[in-house]
Amino acid sequence: MDEPGQPELAGLVRLRLDLGYDGSGFHGWASQPGLRTVQQVIEEALGRVLGLPGPPWPALTVAGRTDSGVHARGQVAHVDVPADAWAQAAAVAVRRLGRLLPDDVRIWSIGLAEVGFDARFSALWRRYSYRVCDDPVLEDPLRRRDTLWYGRRLDLDRMNEAAGVCLGEHDFAAFCRRREGATTVRTVIWLDWARAEPGVCVATVTADAFCHNMVRALTGALLSVGDGSRSPAWLGEILEARRRDPAVRVAPAHPLCLEEVGYPPAADLAARAASTRRMRELPHAG
Amino acid sequence: MDEPGQPELAGLVRLRLDLGYDGSGFHGWASQPGLRTVQQVIEEALGRVLGLPGPPWPALTVAGRTDSGVHARGQVAHVDVPADAWAQAAAVAVRRLGRLLPDDVRIWSIGLAEVGFDARFSALWRRYSYRVCDDPVLEDPLRRRDTLWYGRRLDLDRMNEAAGVCLGEHDFAAFCRRREGATTVRTVIWLDWARAEPGVCVATVTADAFCHNMVRALTGALLSVGDGSRSPAWLGEILEARRRDPAVRVAPAHPLCLEEVGYPPAADLAARAASTRRMRELPHAG
Repeated sequence: MDEPGQPELAGLVRLRLDLGYDGSGFHGWASQPGLRTVQQVIEEALGRVLGLPGPPWPALTVAGRTDSGVHARGQVAHVDVPADAWAQAAAVAVRRLGRLLPDDVRIWSIGLAEVGFDARFSALWRRYSYRVCDDPVLEDPLRRRDTLWYGRRLDLDRMNEAAGVCLGEHDFAAFCRRREGATTVRTVIWLDWARAEPGVCVATVTADAFCHNMVRALTGALLSVGDGSRSPAWLGEILEARRRDPAVRVAPAHPLCLEEVGYPPAADLAARAASTRRMRELPHAG
Repeated sequence: MDEPGQPELAGLVRLRLDLGYDGSGFHGWASQPGLRTVQQVIEEALGRVLGLPGPPWPALTVAGRTDSGVHARGQVAHVDVPADAWAQAAAVAVRRLGRLLPDDVRIWSIGLAEVGFDARFSALWRRYSYRVCDDPVLEDPLRRRDTLWYGRRLDLDRMNEAAGVCLGEHDFAAFCRRREGATTVRTVIWLDWARAEPGVCVATVTADAFCHNMVRALTGALLSVGDGSRSPAWLGEILEARRRDPAVRVAPAHPLCLEEVGYPPAADLAARAASTRRMRELPHAG
């Protein structure tokens, strides 16, 4: 099932799922024995709706493998399932999933994926948000599960000045957990901070893809710039050093949310998937 | 301590508290033996910050006694405490309360109340919001604790047309739980529905005060109008009948939030409190 667009050969069809979840009650996306994860909860519900034997259930592939506590409003996944089972369940699948799934995860649509679609490798970009309250007298208990209560005022102009050095293609090794044989080169398309409402600052970060912990490490560094404890130029120094710096504190997980995943037009899905696979596995020379 | 503006006579001072809470984990505002309530949690934290012996701790009086599951972003309370204890704690009270209180309740300010201030009886109006998602493909798990997932589309024009009959002074007995010796006449100053974001409708309801369950009963009736199962004129018929109608379903508590309480200028606080007390206790003739 690893070749995009090919599952039909084995009597399978590939489905695309659009979904969201409150990460508070999950040990992240990826299945882990004995732990409640989004992947495991959805795979089981989908297996039951399709009347499949299991476990194991057909495995989901996801655009953004979120960590423990991270939320999603625009997550995308795919799964290959028997064509006959899908044909029987298609008309009622969303409604039945809505009843079977717990309230902290919602599947908004499920249907046949376009030819060549791969939720992970076809994606052009991922957009995350990070929500921070910087005024203690505006801390809203109702939003505490997706907002960092920072306690100090943030200077967003300073943060946006510092963020500029991250735009474009860079080796983000300073903000990533290094993995053998995987590149840490990424292209940041957008990174800014804005006041969403009184006392609430929201970062918007878009990149082709993110290394593990990259958004939270970048955010941690930018918060140090925003509260005045570091200079805007410090971020560029860290980036250029290309190695983890203990002065960069990884920001908490709960204010982070995967908002949207972008894909190319249908005709380009398979080519994008093939080229992404090649790039991710190549060690970066420059 | 029942006379507004008089606590100084007994070596006490009256404090005003501005606060908010996520009602999900509370059995409402009012203290009840053996249950976790907002009042009990705050009274204990405040007693400790002031170094008072207890329990019992000095009792809070609140502008809106919210039910189990109802939230607040603009709640106001007062409490009479020994003047010497307050003098010692005043400078650090907000910060110490922030550390002592659980994350689901925040006190944003606490300080000496203006002369004549009574959080309950001086109030001119209370404003509540009620948040409903009427599009199943836009149900956000992150907001499930303060949003009703209604499942059917709502026609806000119909609802606002129906809501018009509630404006002004009426006997809301049809939407209240009757209490002996208490009037059910209230003045609704504002009541409308608007789309706050895609798929999310928010009611704004402002009145001088509300009877028990009044906002939720009005909302339940308006939802029946909005989904087409009742006509806009039906709401006026219910209101005029002046008795509880089993066709009116009380809407769930968790999407309801006390947003703001309005008070008159300082010079009018005591007079307002005195006149409110008289009105509430009088049976209504008309």
